[in-house]
Amino acid sequence: MGTILERIDGPEDVKCLDREELEGLAAEIRAVLIEYCGAHGGHVGSNLATVEPIIALHRVFNPPHHDHIVFDVSHQAYTHKILTGRRRAFTDPSLYGTVSGFTCPEESPYDDFMLGHTGTSISLACGLARMRDLTGDDGNVVAFIGDGSLSSGPAFEGLDWAAEQGGNLIVILNDNEMSIAENHGGLYRSLAALRRSGGRSAMNPFRDLGLDYRYVEEGNDLGSLIDAFEAAKDIDHPILIHIHTRKGLGLGHGRRSGSGLLEGTPAEGRVEGNHWEDARSSVGNLPNSRKTYGRLAMQALQRRFADEPGLVVISPATALSNGIDPEFRRQAGSHFMDVGITESNAVALAAGMARAGGHPVVATSSTFFQRAYDQIEQEMALNGSAVTLLNFSTGISGTDVTHSGVSDIAMMTSIPGLTCLAPTGAADFLSMLAWATGPAHRPVVIRVPGELTLAYERRQGTLTGEYPKAPVADGTFDGGHWEHYRTLQSGQGVALLALGDTLPLARATAAILTERTGRAPTLVDPGQYSLMDDDTLEGLGKDHRLVATLEDGQVEGGWGQRIASYFGSSPLHVINFGPAREFNDRVPVGQLRERYGMTPVFMASRLEEAMKGMEQGD
Amino acid sequence: MGTILERIDGPEDVKCLDREELEGLAAEIRAVLIEYCGAHGGHVGSNLATVEPIIALHRVFNPPHHDHIVFDVSHQAYTHKILTGRRRAFTDPSLYGTVSGFTCPEESPYDDFMLGHTGTSISLACGLARMRDLTGDDGNVVAFIGDGSLSSGPAFEGLDWAAEQGGNLIVILNDNEMSIAENHGGLYRSLAALRRSGGRSAMNPFRDLGLDYRYVEEGNDLGSLIDAFEAAKDIDHPILIHIHTRKGLGLGHGRRSGSGLLEGTPAEGRVEGNHWEDARSSVGNLPNSRKTYGRLAMQALQRRFADEPGLVVISPATALSNGIDPEFRRQAGSHFMDVGITESNAVALAAGMARAGGHPVVATSSTFFQRAYDQIEQEMALNGSAVTLLNFSTGISGTDVTHSGVSDIAMMTSIPGLTCLAPTGAADFLSMLAWATGPAHRPVVIRVPGELTLAYERRQGTLTGEYPKAPVADGTFDGGHWEHYRTLQSGQGVALLALGDTLPLARATAAILTERTGRAPTLVDPGQYSLMDDDTLEGLGKDHRLVATLEDGQVEGGWGQRIASYFGSSPLHVINFGPAREFNDRVPVGQLRERYGMTPVFMASRLEEAMKGMEQGD
Repeated sequence: MGTILERIDGPEDVKCLDREELEGLAAEIRAVLIEYCGAHGGHVGSNLATVEPIIALHRVFNPPHHDHIVFDVSHQAYTHKILTGRRRAFTDPSLYGTVSGFTCPEESPYDDFMLGHTGTSISLACGLARMRDLTGDDGNVVAFIGDGSLSSGPAFEGLDWAAEQGGNLIVILNDNEMSIAENHGGLYRSLAALRRSGGRSAMNPFRDLGLDYRYVEEGNDLGSLIDAFEAAKDIDHPILIHIHTRKGLGLGHGRRSGSGLLEGTPAEGRVEGNHWEDARSSVGNLPNSRKTYGRLAMQALQRRFADEPGLVVISPATALSNGIDPEFRRQAGSHFMDVGITESNAVALAAGMARAGGHPVVATSSTFFQRAYDQIEQEMALNGSAVTLLNFSTGISGTDVTHSGVSDIAMMTSIPGLTCLAPTGAADFLSMLAWATGPAHRPVVIRVPGELTLAYERRQGTLTGEYPKAPVADGTFDGGHWEHYRTLQSGQGVALLALGDTLPLARATAAILTERTGRAPTLVDPGQYSLMDDDTLEGLGKDHRLVATLEDGQVEGGWGQRIASYFGSSPLHVINFGPAREFNDRVPVGQLRERYGMTPVFMASRLEEAMKGMEQGD
Repeated sequence: MGTILERIDGPEDVKCLDREELEGLAAEIRAVLIEYCGAHGGHVGSNLATVEPIIALHRVFNPPHHDHIVFDVSHQAYTHKILTGRRRAFTDPSLYGTVSGFTCPEESPYDDFMLGHTGTSISLACGLARMRDLTGDDGNVVAFIGDGSLSSGPAFEGLDWAAEQGGNLIVILNDNEMSIAENHGGLYRSLAALRRSGGRSAMNPFRDLGLDYRYVEEGNDLGSLIDAFEAAKDIDHPILIHIHTRKGLGLGHGRRSGSGLLEGTPAEGRVEGNHWEDARSSVGNLPNSRKTYGRLAMQALQRRFADEPGLVVISPATALSNGIDPEFRRQAGSHFMDVGITESNAVALAAGMARAGGHPVVATSSTFFQRAYDQIEQEMALNGSAVTLLNFSTGISGTDVTHSGVSDIAMMTSIPGLTCLAPTGAADFLSMLAWATGPAHRPVVIRVPGELTLAYERRQGTLTGEYPKAPVADGTFDGGHWEHYRTLQSGQGVALLALGDTLPLARATAAILTERTGRAPTLVDPGQYSLMDDDTLEGLGKDHRLVATLEDGQVEGGWGQRIASYFGSSPLHVINFGPAREFNDRVPVGQLRERYGMTPVFMASRLEEAMKGMEQGD
């Protein structure tokens, strides 16, 4: 830790520094961030861009009680955390990971909200400001939002509302000329014109929405920033201060040669690879499930591009983390569209293409599909649009709570007309993808396999190599009878119905049960979770007394409860295994599986006990 | 039917008319619309504003194969329907209601999409245009969108994307200076400046997004419109044509004196009452459940405004239909905010206010809360924001499919941390509202009672008068123990658990069962659907063999299936009653209840049979 930073225990300490010390503080924080992100992993580029702006904010404003600062998405707030009493979590390797990568009210009164999705900071800030005005308080409310977030509908709704609401509101537009990847949308032409003209361009979308406006070209210059913020402080109407920052400032041309997996390791400027840096310890690891299965999917689709002009992959800004790498994008040409952070637009656009005979594929994380719920229900499902959603990052994980992947089953399977598929391996996944983007002619969501399946496939040797070549679709998925469950093993007494990624857990559970009881249970891979397969389910009634469902998504409102309802008035007993209806912030997967009773040993014991209980009751 | 209109069987017939005949056609259609909306009910104001623009579109463009027209929300498309072979549905009273009030591909190849939610037309049009370009086709794609829709995030995302996509795209901005009520948001200042300047204002949000722009002041003048559309036809880049129209044109000062219930019956110009006109036959009817319970809620809240500056009602443009009438709004002052059609903003804004100690109430239809799913999950539930959602228009109804109210239970109850309440009467509702906006300090959604409850209360005499005064909260809802189910009647054998609006059905079912079997079933009003009440449920296990759940929302993913799962490994049988996972377009309620087996007679028989089956099995 540097000599200035070690004296900073709160924003009041920033206010005591002279200009030269402030510069020194920025340099020290920058060095801390580069080391922290390299060692621990993190949003390196955006945080390096916001060192000076955040120091300037804490120099000028007085949170948490008099003023408020709301960080959009909040992954750029590391400096804010460092300045508000949490510096050791970034400077002491033994404390890395003890704070969230996002703002978090449980950590600090300086954090008003727990945020990880794009575009809501302005509305939230308007809410704080409105209450201030209704109660006759004073103080400044600041929303800090990146240019990438501006493409999102919620951000626009907030900006549009701000001017009407009136009163003090300071929107800092942190323009580093990048979204997660490059920016997309007509708005960015106006931003570029504003930058080129030093803020004087007549094309000013913010003034058009009724906001006052100021431009700061040197968005990483403390003096310029402090002056601009001082001038806006205690303003009586909404103003947007457009600051031009440099993503990854301090990384230079990059400080490692790269693993060869990604184009563009972290480096200064407009580099996609500096959105997120993996922890140093993970460099050289095999790629994760998102990248592996995402890349397999892209390989499989790419082979068809020449013959199918309407086969198009649409990514709402999240391409790279889902295996949609720059090489694919270059080769895909018009078959790939990065639409920026516009999930609603992505799904409606896809529905439009489907109506005209196309086969669009929309790929993003399950947590972000929440942002297009209405378009999935209306434009896609109700209209019967032949859109395929590739739903990444599902299931129990140790991720930040804002990026949880356990709610998608409940969300998607409740939507009428949506065919929900859960592949249990790469070949199965590709068979489903081929069906969904071809003969299915219907709205389909595919739950992309996760870590459990990937680990199982690697153990089995069905996926070899760092980035295996796409296996040929293996026919285990029968598109003509997609609604049929796949019975992998026929047994008696107990039947395990394991959806998608839980199949490896069910296999292990079955092995334990077989060893303990001498009787092999039935093992069913449903393959889909939108329809009940009457044939299979009625068949189970004959030789079984107990059905266990496993799903890697919230039990409440999920798939297993449909099975419980199906057998509600039959003598068959049903036990639903799956995560509970609760939020979890960075809880290790193993711990969650223990908590939810989803370890093979526990499940086997519970099923064995349930069977014994039933036999005693006879 | 007029003499020109009777010759119009398709758009080709419009193209044969001379200018004078076109004017005559417009006059005839206007007369038809006034008569139709008055007799049958409909979106009178917006349709009267779009007579000439739609005639001009069909004069100039060549749908359905060469060109495409996508109507945003599509409630303004009656003239389009009249011109595309469906005129008799508007001119022949015996055929009224045979076509949807929205575009509908099942009705006509001229309708590309079934739409009823705001803001997606531009993205959908972009999708059609993109496929045209990918396949090397030609033709024009037109998106027709109202000024009220422009405040919505999806519309912005589409506009922003359009310029980047490039190619032919014609956005018609139908600016009648009104949303459902008046417009809200800073954007509308720019629209006003454009109107005042004849389109020459430098503050042009559309040019700022990279779109070409043209203004037509006389948006109800056929000549001006045809000229503008001809000029834009076959354009090679996106253009927005801003046409200034007059809502309700032809109604004059209104043609009936009004029922006294609404301020502003349909009349020409900026009149809230011309958004929707009730059928003549319904005039004088008692107000429906939305208006009745909405008004009761507003009365109850209003009494507290003087003492609680942070008690605020937020409406995303849908105030009047939910009983939030102009008189309330005037008296509420700063305690009421119409935020325009911005559901994402409404919920995030409320979360911001809650964080600052306020008690915001967001009121809209359940189908529109879908548009804020992500904000309900992230900003509201995850952040534990003390926001109350008043969820109107839930349950089975004969409504247009785009406005269905059966998906909210599955959607809301899957969200962790969200307390979901289902009152079963006015006093209960107001008790819950008082708790949610006061001591609860948590995110709450209240399912506003519907027609079944209203009819029951009127029969019981607990609600008297056209608009009854708010009864005092009756204490049937115990906020301190909100998670406890309310057991209304203790019986044996069968237990009926009836959520919210289904309680009157359960009462009737219980009466039939009692009469037939001589044994009264247990009757439980859970009051909430977010938590299992272990005490009550375990208690049922003792004296009962069969539990029936009733809910007025989709069974799959809903509340009853949670009960089925709860009893999955107990000897208790469970039957879940509720609507199926399917879309329904204007199917009468009675027919749906028959289909879902939700009539008291059917339910009683099914339960009786199930009990007999179990007794025989003993």
